Amino acid sequence: MKGKRLLMIPGPIEFTDEVLAEMSLPTLSHVDPQFIEEFGQAIEKMRKVWLAPNGQPFAVAGSGTLAMELAAANITEPGDNVLIVHTGYFSDRMADIFRLHGANVDIVPSGVGDLPSLELVRAQLKAKYYKTLSITHVDTSTGVRADVKNLAAAAHETGTLVVVDGVCAVAGEELRMEEWGVDIALTASQKAVGVPPGLALLVASSRAIDAFKARKSPVRAYYCDWQYWLPVMEAYEARKAAYFGTPPVNLVRALNVSLGQILSEGMDARFARHAKNARAFRAGLTAMGVKFVPAREEIYANTLTAAWYPEGIDASVLGHIAAEGAVLAGGLHPAIKTKYFRIGHMGMSDASEILATLGAIERGFARAGYRFSPGSAVAAAQAVLAKG
Amino acid sequence: MKGKRLLMIPGPIEFTDEVLAEMSLPTLSHVDPQFIEEFGQAIEKMRKVWLAPNGQPFAVAGSGTLAMELAAANITEPGDNVLIVHTGYFSDRMADIFRLHGANVDIVPSGVGDLPSLELVRAQLKAKYYKTLSITHVDTSTGVRADVKNLAAAAHETGTLVVVDGVCAVAGEELRMEEWGVDIALTASQKAVGVPPGLALLVASSRAIDAFKARKSPVRAYYCDWQYWLPVMEAYEARKAAYFGTPPVNLVRALNVSLGQILSEGMDARFARHAKNARAFRAGLTAMGVKFVPAREEIYANTLTAAWYPEGIDASVLGHIAAEGAVLAGGLHPAIKTKYFRIGHMGMSDASEILATLGAIERGFARAGYRFSPGSAVAAAQAVLAKG
Repeated sequence: MKGKRLLMIPGPIEFTDEVLAEMSLPTLSHVDPQFIEEFGQAIEKMRKVWLAPNGQPFAVAGSGTLAMELAAANITEPGDNVLIVHTGYFSDRMADIFRLHGANVDIVPSGVGDLPSLELVRAQLKAKYYKTLSITHVDTSTGVRADVKNLAAAAHETGTLVVVDGVCAVAGEELRMEEWGVDIALTASQKAVGVPPGLALLVASSRAIDAFKARKSPVRAYYCDWQYWLPVMEAYEARKAAYFGTPPVNLVRALNVSLGQILSEGMDARFARHAKNARAFRAGLTAMGVKFVPAREEIYANTLTAAWYPEGIDASVLGHIAAEGAVLAGGLHPAIKTKYFRIGHMGMSDASEILATLGAIERGFARAGYRFSPGSAVAAAQAVLAKG
Repeated sequence: MKGKRLLMIPGPIEFTDEVLAEMSLPTLSHVDPQFIEEFGQAIEKMRKVWLAPNGQPFAVAGSGTLAMELAAANITEPGDNVLIVHTGYFSDRMADIFRLHGANVDIVPSGVGDLPSLELVRAQLKAKYYKTLSITHVDTSTGVRADVKNLAAAAHETGTLVVVDGVCAVAGEELRMEEWGVDIALTASQKAVGVPPGLALLVASSRAIDAFKARKSPVRAYYCDWQYWLPVMEAYEARKAAYFGTPPVNLVRALNVSLGQILSEGMDARFARHAKNARAFRAGLTAMGVKFVPAREEIYANTLTAAWYPEGIDASVLGHIAAEGAVLAGGLHPAIKTKYFRIGHMGMSDASEILATLGAIERGFARAGYRFSPGSAVAAAQAVLAKG
């Protein structure tokens, strides 16, 4: 729509018209046959989007942080060893959540904008038995992407469960949950899944469900406890009514529509599109002389870009860029918060949105007095986008 | 709209067009000035709807069960004594949640469809020190309404905190939180507050916040912990951005609109309207020879009615009533589940909806072979509704 400002933050993102239309349909009863059918479909589609044909999906009213706790709380018992691959703000949060649920947490550290080497993680996994390895797929605070495939393979050598915080990744970054042996992959609806905020989503492997069923102590958080949610998810998938908490009906219906759109595109095509769009963004910013927060190219995320403000520019440029039509996000990692900004580019964002956003960035930077060659960013991005 | 089926269950309810329209607006960033303003307004309005001028509101993505845990988890430490006024299914759930968070729970019992006497509760409060008294204002499973005002007064004689599970009550049943000395009153958005499901809502008194701040042990559930939510609620009310989890933007905007509609009606007028509508429903059902689950007239809820199936009628009548235009709910309390049904009549439901619903009930019962005088229910209800 004309005059609309694009929401290009790492979630909430721009949602499709079809998804937004579902949100305002008169709310059905949570035991209405039509809603039961739609919730059942959504559960089946989650399995396909996560590429986990034998996984158990959960969709619960809550934010991404609830999804993190839904993962940690159910497979952790007091005294369990948990290893965290540290990549930023959300790795620290995951460590806090595991600790609260009784885990002894070790952290493989890294500098800001970096992540520990695979060798370091593997060595730590061999030095001590860990029940769980926790990986943030894409750290929303820094745009650092972890190598989930190889980290999961290393964990399997020691029989360690793999939890992937995929809040800024699932349905955007390549994740082949079952093939890679990931045991829990979680996200929030407002990210690449493309549904307004309010749904915590995760898929658990049969190993994760077994670990839950084998626990000797109760789960410490009532609303997180799979003992209540598992029968509900199984019932809806079997097209039967069940009750624990009232599901967020409008959001679940929107989820079903969005997952359908994602599967229509196809997961391989979707991963490739996200990678290409990210390259286009980086080419555009690079053409303006802007540098990135992640330390190395191979760890750049495909769902968001975290970039340093060039010299002489500060967070006030975001107001100029918003005035020019694109809402970006400021920094989040406490150590560097005022020095960088973030662009989300996940979900259905297409070439036009990328060019529009880079155009707004160019004009916003110009307003802030930054000197560069106007048009260079959009031209460089277009050169990437126009390639087959 | 023609041909539409009325959703007359104890939540989700029928929402207003204005509330549903908010749901599908393009999602704003959670730090957009417009959203900050709207969230701030919603927090201020909660205080007015709860009649708690000094209360601290919380609005968090989740179901009513999360609201129950948000209440219990933050004021309970291991070893605390908690007394439950037992009225049905949700009192048992509240007891489970308090226990999980370390409380020693005692229950003042009652029969199905009844609640313990005020004298019994007062005697138990004097027999032993209880940190917290937990009351389900209206038990969604049985339609029993507790006398919150006098129970709270009894608790104050012993310095006991009062938690009110108001899931089926807040914004429908009379609740004067501050005047009555209630310390936490919680609900879910899809009930009388009139917003699609997905928001856990509560207001805490300064005594409750003090009890939280004085705790010596950590809150056991991460996503429930007020230490994270309190600064966020305070920031939004001060019209500043803050982050813990991404708020469910569309639901919060819908909440702001619905609370505005509630306050336009005025709380006293709203309580009176709910009481009158409930009387009209009961008059209609009584005219058909239908009897109610709650044991005595003074404990009938004003937000929902639980009624026994007459002889020869079973749950299949609900299908007939739905086909005639009104969706009602089956039984929920395990002890009597197949023997009764529930009608929700909270939120904006007006005289036309009540007559339409009773008309559908009459025709549904007729389809099921029940013998009564056709028109008797709508006439009896209309006699109540037409009075000044």
